[in-house]
Parts: sequence; C-alpha cells; structure tokens
Amino acid sequence: METNSCNGPANVGFKIPERVSRESRLDSTLVNVAGVEVGGLDVVIIAGPCAVESEEQLFDTARAVKRDGARILRGGAFKPRSSPYSFQGMGEDGLKLLSSVRAETGMPVVTEVMDTRQVDLIGEYADMLQVGSRNMQNYPLLKEVGLSRKPVLLKRGMMATIEEFLLAAEYILSQGNENVILCERGIRTFETTTRNTLDLSAIPMLKRLTHLPVIVDPSHGTGIRWMVPAMAKAAIAAGADGLIMEVHYRPDEALCDGYQSLDLDLFKTLMADLKRIAEAVDRKMS
Amino acid sequence: METNSCNGPANVGFKIPERVSRESRLDSTLVNVAGVEVGGLDVVIIAGPCAVESEEQLFDTARAVKRDGARILRGGAFKPRSSPYSFQGMGEDGLKLLSSVRAETGMPVVTEVMDTRQVDLIGEYADMLQVGSRNMQNYPLLKEVGLSRKPVLLKRGMMATIEEFLLAAEYILSQGNENVILCERGIRTFETTTRNTLDLSAIPMLKRLTHLPVIVDPSHGTGIRWMVPAMAKAAIAAGADGLIMEVHYRPDEALCDGYQSLDLDLFKTLMADLKRIAEAVDRKMS
Amino acid sequence: METNSCNGPANVGFKIPERVSRESRLDSTLVNVAGVEVGGLDVVIIAGPCAVESEEQLFDTARAVKRDGARILRGGAFKPRSSPYSFQGMGEDGLKLLSSVRAETGMPVVTEVMDTRQVDLIGEYADMLQVGSRNMQNYPLLKEVGLSRKPVLLKRGMMATIEEFLLAAEYILSQGNENVILCERGIRTFETTTRNTLDLSAIPMLKRLTHLPVIVDPSHGTGIRWMVPAMAKAAIAAGADGLIMEVHYRPDEALCDGYQSLDLDLFKTLMADLKRIAEAVDRKMS
Amino acid sequence: METNSCNGPANVGFKIPERVSRESRLDSTLVNVAGVEVGGLDVVIIAGPCAVESEEQLFDTARAVKRDGARILRGGAFKPRSSPYSFQGMGEDGLKLLSSVRAETGMPVVTEVMDTRQVDLIGEYADMLQVGSRNMQNYPLLKEVGLSRKPVLLKRGMMATIEEFLLAAEYILSQGNENVILCERGIRTFETTTRNTLDLSAIPMLKRLTHLPVIVDPSHGTGIRWMVPAMAKAAIAAGADGLIMEVHYRPDEALCDGYQSLDLDLFKTLMADLKRIAEAVDRKMS
Repeated sequence: METNSCNGPANVGFKIPERVSRESRLDSTLVNVAGVEVGGLDVVIIAGPCAVESEEQLFDTARAVKRDGARILRGGAFKPRSSPYSFQGMGEDGLKLLSSVRAETGMPVVTEVMDTRQVDLIGEYADMLQVGSRNMQNYPLLKEVGLSRKPVLLKRGMMATIEEFLLAAEYILSQGNENVILCERGIRTFETTTRNTLDLSAIPMLKRLTHLPVIVDPSHGTGIRWMVPAMAKAAIAAGADGLIMEVHYRPDEALCDGYQSLDLDLFKTLMADLKRIAEAVDRKMS
Repeated sequence: METNSCNGPANVGFKIPERVSRESRLDSTLVNVAGVEVGGLDVVIIAGPCAVESEEQLFDTARAVKRDGARILRGGAFKPRSSPYSFQGMGEDGLKLLSSVRAETGMPVVTEVMDTRQVDLIGEYADMLQVGSRNMQNYPLLKEVGLSRKPVLLKRGMMATIEEFLLAAEYILSQGNENVILCERGIRTFETTTRNTLDLSAIPMLKRLTHLPVIVDPSHGTGIRWMVPAMAKAAIAAGADGLIMEVHYRPDEALCDGYQSLDLDLFKTLMADLKRIAEAVDRKMS
Repeated sequence: METNSCNGPANVGFKIPERVSRESRLDSTLVNVAGVEVGGLDVVIIAGPCAVESEEQLFDTARAVKRDGARILRGGAFKPRSSPYSFQGMGEDGLKLLSSVRAETGMPVVTEVMDTRQVDLIGEYADMLQVGSRNMQNYPLLKEVGLSRKPVLLKRGMMATIEEFLLAAEYILSQGNENVILCERGIRTFETTTRNTLDLSAIPMLKRLTHLPVIVDPSHGTGIRWMVPAMAKAAIAAGADGLIMEVHYRPDEALCDGYQSLDLDLFKTLMADLKRIAEAVDRKMS
Repeated sequence: METNSCNGPANVGFKIPERVSRESRLDSTLVNVAGVEVGGLDVVIIAGPCAVESEEQLFDTARAVKRDGARILRGGAFKPRSSPYSFQGMGEDGLKLLSSVRAETGMPVVTEVMDTRQVDLIGEYADMLQVGSRNMQNYPLLKEVGLSRKPVLLKRGMMATIEEFLLAAEYILSQGNENVILCERGIRTFETTTRNTLDLSAIPMLKRLTHLPVIVDPSHGTGIRWMVPAMAKAAIAAGADGLIMEVHYRPDEALCDGYQSLDLDLFKTLMADLKRIAEAVDRKMS
C-alpha cells in the first residue's frame, strides 16, 4: 500500500491516539465557543492583549479588535513568566474584567489556566480554557480540564513532537471533553533571530491526523511584531482554522510581550489582508 | 530608537554583511535567469525532477511543467547522496539532456554543482548554478561560483542560522557575482514526522535584511508529497518570490526522492491554486 | 575585563538570577536529604526503579542498591506518562511502600510530585520532592514546593536553556526554600539514536554560575541501558555532585523504562568503576 | 531477541554501513599517523593552535605541547571562516611552517583540507588530512581523501546524525582508505551558553557501531576555554581514544578562536589530570 499518497492515511511512524484520530469519526469536530464555531468554513480570529492590565487597556483593545472582525477575546489573568520577579498577572481581578468586557461586547473569552486548583474558578469566568505551552505535558492539569465541560485551547509545547501533542490532547478527550482546539505556536530550534520557529507544516499534518480544529499563534511563533502579518497570512494559506494574536492598544506600554503585539492600526490592516487569503483558499472570515 | 518596528531596520543581534544588506542599495535585486526575472512582481515557479534519469523522464516532465506555468526547469546531474552506494546522478550525460530539453522548450535550466572542479563544466550547460544545503558552507565552492558570471541558487544549510546563510551569500557577492537567489528548504529540528521543518519565517526575515530574492523548496522542506501544496501556498502568502518543486512524470518509479515529488496532475492543480494566492498578496504568476 | 577567563565570572549573555547566583554567597550549598549531604566532596548516588510496582520489586531493588553504595532511593508513585493509557503509577500505595522500605533500609527517599494538590501528601512520605522535566516551568508547582521545607530535586526541562533552568530554581528559592539540587537529564535535539542528548557541559556551566549542587541522570539522558555506565563515568569526571539512575531487579519485566534500567549486576560493577573516577577527580564515594 | 542488551548489536533503527560496521571485522582499527597509533590502549592527545599564524607562534606552541605529552600537532593553514572578511589562513606558507616544525619536533601533523583541488598539495606536507564539520557531507571531497593514502580525521557535522556521520566515513572507506578517525566536536542545539553542545554519548555509540577510533574536540565542542578541562576529562571517562584541543602560546592575541584556546599553563595542568582519568578507565597516556 502506498502510505504517503494524497488520500490514504499518513505514515508517521507512530500510532495515532484513538480518540483524537481522524479515523475515529466521519466529520471534523466543530468546537463551539459560546456561540462561535471553530473548525468550519469560517476562519476564526482570536485577538487581545497578552495580559489583562487595566480596564481601559482591556476595553479599548477589545472594542477595537471586535470592530475589525475578531470573534473571540484573549487576555491573560494568571501569567506564566520565566522569572518569578516579572509581572504575574492580575489574577481574579483580571478574570472579572474579562467577564465585564464580555458582557459589553458579546465576545467569548479565552484565558490561561496553569494550576489544577484554578480550573473551577477560571471556568466560572471564561468561555474557553487555555493550556499553555509550558503545561502541555502537565498531565494532572490536562485531566482536570478534561473533566471540565469548557472548550480547551491546547498549545503545542515548544519542544513537543506531533505525537506528544496528540497524546496531550488525548488526555483531555479521555476524560470526556472533546472540545479541544490545537494551537501551533512555534517550536524551539537553533535559530535565534525569531523567538521560536513557527512550524506551519504542523497545520496540514494535524488536519490530516486528527478531527480537531487547528489554529496558529503567529505572535509567540515569531516574537516580532512586524513578522506577524506575513506568518498570519501563511497560516491561513496552509489551512489553519483560525489564529490567535496579541493586540494591544499601546504596545510600547505593555507589561508583557509588547514587542510582539500588533497595535490597533496594524491589526485592522491585517484583517483586510487575511480576508483575501481566506477567500483564495475557499474559506471565509465573517 | 524602536528597533523592531515595522519600518526601521530589524534588530537581529548581528551585523548584516555589507554586500547582501538591504541597506546597501535602493532597490531589490532582480536576478535574470536567461530571460526569467526572479525578485519582481512575478512569482516564479521552478519545477522538474530531483534527478535527470532518462530522456523520456526529463522531456515528458519538462513539457508538462512548462505547459502548466513553470518558468525554469530543475534537474540534478550530479547528486549529493547520503550513501556512497545510492544513485549518484547521470553526470555529464545528464547535463547534455538538460541542454537539449532547454533547446526544445526554451526553459532556462538550474542544476547543482558540488565540486570546485565542475563549476566551469556545469556553467557551460546550465543557466543557473545551484549550491545545495550540504555545501552552504563549502567556502571554496562559494568563491568559485562567485567568480562565475552565472546566477546562483543558494540553498540554506539544514542547520544554518540566518546569519550564516547571509554570510554564505556574502562569500559569493564578495567575488563579484551579485546574481544570488536565496532558498529556504527546511531546517533540522527534533520533529520527525516531516523530513525537515520548513522555516517560512525566514521569508519575511530575509526579505527585510537583504535585497536578494527569496524562494522556497516545499519538496525538501517537508519530504512528503501530500504536504507540498499546503506549504507552497503558505510560502507565497508569506512573501516568497518563487518556489522550487520536485515534479516527476512517474514518482513511484523515481530513482531519487519519489515520495516527495508531485505527479503531473497534482502539479497542474497546485499551479491553479497558487495563482489565487499570488493575487491575494498582490503578486502574479504569468 | 577578560570575561571567559578561568577565574572571573562567566559571560553567558544573561543576568544570573539573584538567589541562585554563585555571587550571592561564599560557599557552595550543601543540601541535606535526611542526613545525606549532596554538594560536598562525596559523590552521592541515587538509585532505584523508575516506578514503584510491588513490595518485592521495591524491596529487592532497594536492598541491592544500598548494599552496593547507593545513598538515596528513587521510585515513582505518580508517573507522568506521555499516553493516558500507560501505567500511571501506584499512587499513595506506592508512597506507603517507599516509606516502609525507608524504615527498613534507612535510605532517604525521593519521589516525583506533579500536582500542586499533592505536595503536602507526598511531603509526608518522601525526604525529597522531585519536580520532573515536563514540569520545570510549571510555576504554581515550583512555588508550592518552594513553600515546602523539603529538599527539591529539580530536573532540567528537555527544552530548557540554562537560563530558564536557573530561573525555575529561582522560583523555588524565592519562596524561601534553598534546598534545591539541579539535575541535568538530557535535552532534546535532532539526534534519534539516543532518547535525549545528555548535555554534560551543563555540569561545569551550572557549577560556575550557581552555588547549588548539580547531579546527572544518565538513564533518561541516554534511554539505553548499555550506554548508562559510560555516561555515568563521564558525568563524575566532568564534576557532577551525584547521579540518579534507574535500577530494577528484573528490567525486562519493568512496567516503565525497563530498556534504560540497569540490572543489579550492572549496577554493582558500575559502582566500583565510579569510585575510581571519583578518586581521579579528588572526590570520593563513601 | 533482546536488542539493546550490553552484548548484542545495538538497535539504532538504521543499517550500519558495511565497511565501517563493527560487524565487518574482528578487531578495532588502529590508525597509524606517521608512527603514532590511534585506537589502542594509549589515549592520544592532538594539540596546537587553531590557525598557523607565524613561525614563533607555531614553534613555541608546538614545543610546549610536545613537552607536556601531546603526540600529534594540529594547525590550520586553510581556514573555513563564516565571513569572507575574516583571516583565511596562511595557505601554503602555513603548510611549510607545519612541515618544518615537524622536522624539528618529530610530531606528526594534521591540517584541514577544504577543496578537492588541494588534497594532493596538503598531502605532501601533512601526516593526516582533516575534513571539517562544514564539509562532512562534501561528497567529492570525501571521495578524494578516500583515494589518498593519508589517514583522515573526519569531524562530525554540527547537524549530522550518527547515521549520516557513519555514511560520511563509509564514503572514504569505499574508496579504499580505511585509516579514518571519527571526531565528535559538538552539535547544534537550542542552547546558547556554549558554542555547541558536546554530544559525549556519541563516544559509546560510535565505539559500539564501528571499528574506527573515536576522538573528541572539547575546544569547538564548548567554545569556552574554562570549560575545556571538564569536558576533556569527561570524554576520556566515556571512552574516547583521544582528544584534539586548541592550544595557543598567547590566546589573547590569537587570530582565530582565542577564547576557546588553552594557554600553555592550563594545558600542562590538564595533561596531568587527564592521565589520572585515563588510568581510572584502564587506559594510559604515554
């Protein structure tokens, strides 16, 4: 049998975990995030600041990204920082701000959970739970979000193979939660001009191996603001079901990751460009 | 000064070599390959078999890719193979076939040179000299092709940083030959489901740092036939000036790299799709 | 000032975190694990099975490694496994077995903690808490073991730079717990003949940058039983303060990592060899 | 059959090339470099400057390293430099200096060859030809040194797998030259505090798979002078048949790689330490 032909199953040298495997169901999974469907014809844009910093920052940014076409709002309340001395996020106050901006704008909200003890709390405020790169193999956390009924945005570890990424998703599905969105966000390589190396080949690979939606984070994937537009366009051309991007109303004042955040003007321009790419691959951005 | 803004020079932590630096000239370099310009509005497709194997194989493949829009023909006569016991290419007989297919089709030809002693010989038959990944830091070879007046297609080493890639190009320019096309073809990472990890972020990075054209090889970059179309589209969306792809009239019988070669039908379909992406980023494929 | 001379501080391109920095105190830290000092002249060997599987397995293995010179017993009760369908460890029953083998042999016990909710429970049974590679950047967990007063064995993440490793240790020290032992256990690279690439250069680097003890795990670092002895010897020659190794009384029947576990005979032979190396670098194994 | 036991053949997932395979002969190969045997009980130290710079520099360094126990002299006449504007070596004048220092000291000389056109010339002056990392897959060069009857020191490419390294050696053996010494010199990884990551696990792996001698280059492997001694000791403890190290009589004035070169005092001290390690693994340094 021809293994790497364009129809048959891919020959990747490992067994695709049972529940995430495309073989396990007829259709692609549509993940419903409080009314926004991810995984269908629509390319869904998730945008917002790296961290929730203040009411003004969050509301001004959220209103702008919604106006320009973002469908889901991102924003960190509990932040995983390399140094214990960096800003660690606003915590529950940040969650409350996310909740009130959702009330105003109607946009569903995704925020990161890092601790098994916080899953319930964050689940009260957020519409989707994010498991970050550094926790992709935090198995107790994967099980805990698997027991929750919230959709989960699972980011690929920065040194995780495709096999490990699928196994991490399988942990969540094995607990009964099938609402998982996979997110490629750059892997670690020897190259140092970019923060990570965005592995866009993960998109067609994952789409072929699994029925789950696949999105891309070009902000962390490059770590450089001016590089985000090119990689965002490339991701959609390669078949991504959506993007998650950092946008800040005043990137130079951001407490976290300002150098990779788009400002509002760049975001607006980029959204128009993305629509054209989406149409060129028979998708749409509504 | 804001270093990583969208206009100013990029802050990459090293000095851009003088002759390849974008700062060194007003315009982007257009490399003229026997009448085909690379680096302008046109996205140029280079296609053909991994290795020249026979008259029938080469002519049938060349006629098909030309008909579907390829502008330059690729084909290896001297092949760098990991094992000394693998097919090493047809040698000068392969060059002669390339020369006669060029006479018939009018397509310029690019082929690889591996040995300083072969530069003159290959230059008699080919319109562009390819320096392969394994020779990206073969400095005597870089100097020798720099002394030639043929355009050079320089492939990124599989573990070369952007800085080393630019320095390798600088070797060629420093000898007086400015007709250099840079080619991203995948870097080596821990991921094993793909043959290499295609680093598409190299496209915007190189386009910003240097005035030279940048193309992408999605065939070696993925090593998997069915993955080539997605990555070819992504490369153009990210701003590539062209693509080089392996196409074979009967991939399953290829002596080299058949599993990553497109067949003629897939190539035809892909070319139509690529045209749509090119237009969505204000480029064209004529 | 000459930066990379043999005396002055190393020039590594980043700021050494304050509390882990060698500059912050006069002497090297000695970590006392229930009476066994790590970080002094004695090279300390930690040995035992990957996972606690049964009373017989644990006791037979523990008695043997103690007889041959191991000072601390390792054994996993809660196991981080890539697949949700693999053996996940005996849980609290495993902790109880560890506790009773300690009572008999007098060997202190180290075992892994993966969940913030388990720190207290595991602390009741174990003498040292292990934070595994996959959790090296699980910041809530680092803070929680930092609040504990137990010594912590912190394993380097398979994708962690030296800087990130030190920052992870700093998280623990910043909570008031200075009893941290750093463990190099192999990093992920492109090489696939070994499970990981054991980065022994991390030993002299860490010993120079920080006052904390540094040990090496040649079992995970290679993933191949027959390779463990060579790398164990190399680690001590490079200056490691100790080793942690997987030993199993019947490796072929192990539920976890049998292929990289030493059997009792190999362990005995190795210990004699290690003593000779330790003496050749003016250390000892008592 | 148990594949990764301590006796049977290793299971590495690829076919060991025929001529380099340990299965192909009863004994380990001893490579005779003008009277100095590499691959036997003696651990052989190769030392000298990165580049030949002047008569004084070369002679003073050579006399000192010989006095302290080095058996073979290293020194580059043609240097592969990342930048075309860096010092490229003294060329044939450098070869002549190497030849006269050999006449005085009686030490065999190894120097690098980069160009197929130079193999004969360099073979007239040197006792062993070095193929550097950047040329490990320069197949025409491998064939050319394979046709020579000089011993060859083949350095592992910084991106080469063990399989590719063995295949590169096979190219040389396939031409009839069996006098090949393999040299691990550090691979490229994400870690940036060291110039490369010295992969010492390559020593036991290569010694098991092939009959060829294996040596280590801790100077390039670390890129940091003060780290060389620790890694040199570790390499011998892991079973290396020798070391190649950069030593300079005045490292701070070196035209090339001074920061990783030992000065004469450090070298003398290190040699005494290495002798102790060699004895601890039942080898000797005569």
